[in-house]
Amino acid sequence: MRGMPHPPGRSPAADALRGSPYSTLLAKMATHRGEIYPLHVGDTWKEAPEGGRPEELGRGIPGINRYTDVWGLPELREAIAARAAARTGTSVARGNVLVTGGATAGLMASIGALVSPGEEILLLAPRWPLVEGHVRMAGATPVEVPLLLGGHSGDLSPESAVAAVEAHATERTVGLYLNTPNNPSGRLIPRASLAALGACAQRRDLWIFADEVYEDYAYAGPHAYAFPFAPERTVAAHSLSKAYGLAGARLGWLVGPEAALSQIVKFGAHTIYSAPTASQHAALRILAGAGDAWVAEARTEYAATGREAARRLGMPAPEGGTFLFLDVADALDERGLMGLLEDVAGEGLFLAPGPSFGPYPTHVRLCYTAVPPDVALRGVDVLARRL
Amino acid sequence: MRGMPHPPGRSPAADALRGSPYSTLLAKMATHRGEIYPLHVGDTWKEAPEGGRPEELGRGIPGINRYTDVWGLPELREAIAARAAARTGTSVARGNVLVTGGATAGLMASIGALVSPGEEILLLAPRWPLVEGHVRMAGATPVEVPLLLGGHSGDLSPESAVAAVEAHATERTVGLYLNTPNNPSGRLIPRASLAALGACAQRRDLWIFADEVYEDYAYAGPHAYAFPFAPERTVAAHSLSKAYGLAGARLGWLVGPEAALSQIVKFGAHTIYSAPTASQHAALRILAGAGDAWVAEARTEYAATGREAARRLGMPAPEGGTFLFLDVADALDERGLMGLLEDVAGEGLFLAPGPSFGPYPTHVRLCYTAVPPDVALRGVDVLARRL
Repeated sequence: MRGMPHPPGRSPAADALRGSPYSTLLAKMATHRGEIYPLHVGDTWKEAPEGGRPEELGRGIPGINRYTDVWGLPELREAIAARAAARTGTSVARGNVLVTGGATAGLMASIGALVSPGEEILLLAPRWPLVEGHVRMAGATPVEVPLLLGGHSGDLSPESAVAAVEAHATERTVGLYLNTPNNPSGRLIPRASLAALGACAQRRDLWIFADEVYEDYAYAGPHAYAFPFAPERTVAAHSLSKAYGLAGARLGWLVGPEAALSQIVKFGAHTIYSAPTASQHAALRILAGAGDAWVAEARTEYAATGREAARRLGMPAPEGGTFLFLDVADALDERGLMGLLEDVAGEGLFLAPGPSFGPYPTHVRLCYTAVPPDVALRGVDVLARRL
Repeated sequence: MRGMPHPPGRSPAADALRGSPYSTLLAKMATHRGEIYPLHVGDTWKEAPEGGRPEELGRGIPGINRYTDVWGLPELREAIAARAAARTGTSVARGNVLVTGGATAGLMASIGALVSPGEEILLLAPRWPLVEGHVRMAGATPVEVPLLLGGHSGDLSPESAVAAVEAHATERTVGLYLNTPNNPSGRLIPRASLAALGACAQRRDLWIFADEVYEDYAYAGPHAYAFPFAPERTVAAHSLSKAYGLAGARLGWLVGPEAALSQIVKFGAHTIYSAPTASQHAALRILAGAGDAWVAEARTEYAATGREAARRLGMPAPEGGTFLFLDVADALDERGLMGLLEDVAGEGLFLAPGPSFGPYPTHVRLCYTAVPPDVALRGVDVLARRL
């Protein structure tokens, strides 16, 4: 085989996307004998809830092997609208709901449909890694707004939140991405701050992309939803994967203004057409109540594991989510962050590097729910011994 | 709720994508009492093959609720590589295979990763509707190359195929999309013509995007694969949906040069992350042989239905695929194509309008596999009575 055709070669959009940062570490992992602590990916070790497992979807479901409407099954959209209305205390109709192939697909389609080349999107940082690529895929520029570090390291008052946004906004800014409970820091954005950010977005005529996939995993208090404060300009992303341990189902949904969703659905139809049909049926069962007990149990367990992991690392307990994000600057030698990541990989522990989450050259993220609690805590101890 | 934020409004990419052309027709459908013939969407009426149905995926599969590697399950990639090598007679390794969330997601990611703004892509027409949007999402320009009309209406010799490409290529042309067996015309591109197109692509340094999702449904002769003729520059899209009646699974794969797939996988990771996990396990079973008998039966039935549908419409039998594409100019009045589509919708028959497939203002497409053969043929009769 010859090399890539040149020209044309690859596109600037492909150049702008980060690939996996883990190839060096995976080579290191191959040399390790003993227990493995893959805490670098956000996932759960738990089995999926009863009611939504593939083998429970019987032959009695007509059309389970066929496409659905590109908006999703009508009855699923109704169920999601009812749930969103109950949780947010805001009017949400079926037209305000779009079923997507996971929250990732939903956020990609949202930013693709609503953001134009040359525009700027503010990312409240630290933040989920892939959103940077979504902004670049749209030909726009991501602007990091450091605000959401965990623990006692940041002030999240309404005034400070708005001041951070105002300090980074320009006349090219058209949107604001926020992620609460935060991946990676575990921070919750308080209700009053969301209200202030919503008013700020209205003043500046910005879209709000609200990534709330960890909505069920708030420990320090209830999760506050962004949608009610600026419903005409907020597109909120939700996930069956994160809420119910069903990452493999690739099923999520957006709640937002129907006019925006009518554009976003065209992107969705051009990427996965309709969300996986069996997963939509699983979602129907789970949202009807089959997942409630699972979530309650998982929330208690995740909170306890996160609290104990934080204690062993000498940091405050996470307010929500499934991650800890910590500055390891004091443990680095002349090899920098990658040196530490390779050293702990040599002991079986995999961590995600801080730069994937924004301007954090000496941070690491660990997911304390990716493996059972006792295994996760032994992995945490590998890191704790280095600090 | 207020209107869309303005500015920013929606993106030029969203403006460039077509929405559904069916809203008027669906309104008409609501007024119809009696049998419905939804022949406008490409799908099958058949149940999925034994071996790949959701309820057969037992509890014994570890990780079925979790993400997989963004490239897909290693054992599935191996199975696909072995199958592709056997079918194409070309060396295909695991590194030449990327599992995608359906062929739609695969083609979108391919074009997004390999095509830059301002470039041009030749589309051998008629062609699958969504590829036009994929080219526009990349900021590039689709150029229609009429070549693949069905029946006796086009010459597909190697010389005529290359001449058509040469007549439309410019110095901005970087790729060529072809779809065989053709959606919508049912045409097969002969092996000698694929060889000539491969050589032409090498001469002009073009990518070839080969959409072969109907590879199992060639009736006039065996399906010829594009990959062997220019393996260093061909990205071929395949589909569990089309081959095995599993559209709801959202599972497909690409076969191509590893260097290209390494860029494409970044787009995939940013859109659906990894393909649905249960669907990947279903694909493993089906490709291991569970789907073979199903395909053989479906091929015989589809061919017979297509032949009879064509006979009733006074046109040559389709060479492959699941569609007929016919010029209805003589049946149109001053209301044009939409008038006819509305009239037949009033009798329960839904057809896809020709302009979705290229420069075909007076054509319609019908899918003769979307409903059982007897129902499909009654729908065909509705159209035949108008001609």
